[in-house]
Amino acid sequence: MQTETSSYESLRHLGARELRQSIRNGSYSSQTAGLAAGRLQANLAILPEEHALDFMRFCQRNPKPCPLVGVSETGDPMLRTLGEDIDIRTDVSAYNVYKAGELECSQTDIKDLWRDDLVVFALGCSFTFEHALVAAGIPLWHFQENKTVPMYRSSIQTVPAGVFGGETVVTMRAVAASRVDDAVKLSRRYPLAHGAPLHIGDPADIGIQDLYEPQWGDAPPPVEDNVPVYWACGVTPQNALLRAKLPLALTHKPGHMLVTDIDEQAEVPVYQT
Amino acid sequence: MQTETSSYESLRHLGARELRQSIRNGSYSSQTAGLAAGRLQANLAILPEEHALDFMRFCQRNPKPCPLVGVSETGDPMLRTLGEDIDIRTDVSAYNVYKAGELECSQTDIKDLWRDDLVVFALGCSFTFEHALVAAGIPLWHFQENKTVPMYRSSIQTVPAGVFGGETVVTMRAVAASRVDDAVKLSRRYPLAHGAPLHIGDPADIGIQDLYEPQWGDAPPPVEDNVPVYWACGVTPQNALLRAKLPLALTHKPGHMLVTDIDEQAEVPVYQT
Repeated sequence: MQTETSSYESLRHLGARELRQSIRNGSYSSQTAGLAAGRLQANLAILPEEHALDFMRFCQRNPKPCPLVGVSETGDPMLRTLGEDIDIRTDVSAYNVYKAGELECSQTDIKDLWRDDLVVFALGCSFTFEHALVAAGIPLWHFQENKTVPMYRSSIQTVPAGVFGGETVVTMRAVAASRVDDAVKLSRRYPLAHGAPLHIGDPADIGIQDLYEPQWGDAPPPVEDNVPVYWACGVTPQNALLRAKLPLALTHKPGHMLVTDIDEQAEVPVYQT
Repeated sequence: MQTETSSYESLRHLGARELRQSIRNGSYSSQTAGLAAGRLQANLAILPEEHALDFMRFCQRNPKPCPLVGVSETGDPMLRTLGEDIDIRTDVSAYNVYKAGELECSQTDIKDLWRDDLVVFALGCSFTFEHALVAAGIPLWHFQENKTVPMYRSSIQTVPAGVFGGETVVTMRAVAASRVDDAVKLSRRYPLAHGAPLHIGDPADIGIQDLYEPQWGDAPPPVEDNVPVYWACGVTPQNALLRAKLPLALTHKPGHMLVTDIDEQAEVPVYQT
């Protein structure tokens, strides 16, 4: 019997729980941007308890790149504070498996890798403030063109904790000069989604050599009269994880986020039944 | 030789670091409300590393009563992310020492109790949003009368983590009906200082029997035409600590807060040199 696979378009109407169900039963394994509208999506980091306290310290000290929205019990694959019946072993559409800091493989579930000493961390992502910017009439090129936002290694150092550290990765969105203040104010309202920008203007100020050669994502079109605005990026904690060369670390595959039941506008990321 | 002690009034002009110096050298051991204006003050919880990961989970799951603003390295008494030269063994004006959930004593330093396995947690406090309310012309009775805000055990349960749990403690401030919306919006801007109210209106809705018999703090004057507004309170994590009956737990003595070098308006509580 062949497994029916679902297209992105056919899933657009689904709520978060139904979407996770489709992912769990193997019928969807693609990107999650724009799905389960209005629900908080999250970056994922899964690591052994031995390093969990330091990783939490790292998140606390670097809340803009690493806004913590949920932490599991040790060894419990259910993310009870982020929604109904979220099994982190199966409910994300694709995972990256890292061993000693190297990408070993990507897979669509991590049932074979689950261990009693693993702790799951969910971290807010940029979708939340991007939706707010678009709703306020600040257009985003990568939304309109269906591209990935450009990401850069900056010279802004994170505050280290234990084995975790390294530079802050930033995203860039070009904003009309007249709307930069609005973009700052709006994004500051979302501390669980990277908050206000880290920098505005000259890329060289934060160690970016060439705006048109991002380290990840797509090269942006010419900035022209717009102002480049830089926000902290969820690749920062992923890089910190790789840099730490843990024997085992699991993350979502970029773009394949955890879709939670939390309202994107919620002040506090705690699911209430 | 007698130790010179400083009065509250003589310290009002001091910056945070000078104030901590006066506390460290034993010349000041009283309350800190209104001192080092503009600097973030924090609640304190110090506990063995064995329970630190669960306590951090507890804070992450209950960010309104427990807004984490700083976490030390294990065994390191210096709070490096919250300011210049903060030694947590000496720089708070009074500490409470709890053993197995009972108050053993209060003391003005904890040098004799420091251990290599202790982790320090600093949690945001209500001063920050109270200053914003007063600045916006929303008067606070307990400021005007030099009293302590009334605090109540509510029926709102915290989300537990490990040995930590229990009910949420709330404070009450009576606000003119016409300013309640402003008070909500303003306080929501301060997620590191308890954020927006947990409840507005009837105390019975959140299990408060008698508004005029608070469990801690001073009884408020008649609410009259004002609306009672309830915010999460930093006594919540203290209660969770007591309830957990750890062999050793240290906190600040109520009102005797840790005075940091962080700007009260800062988006992120990380000290930059």
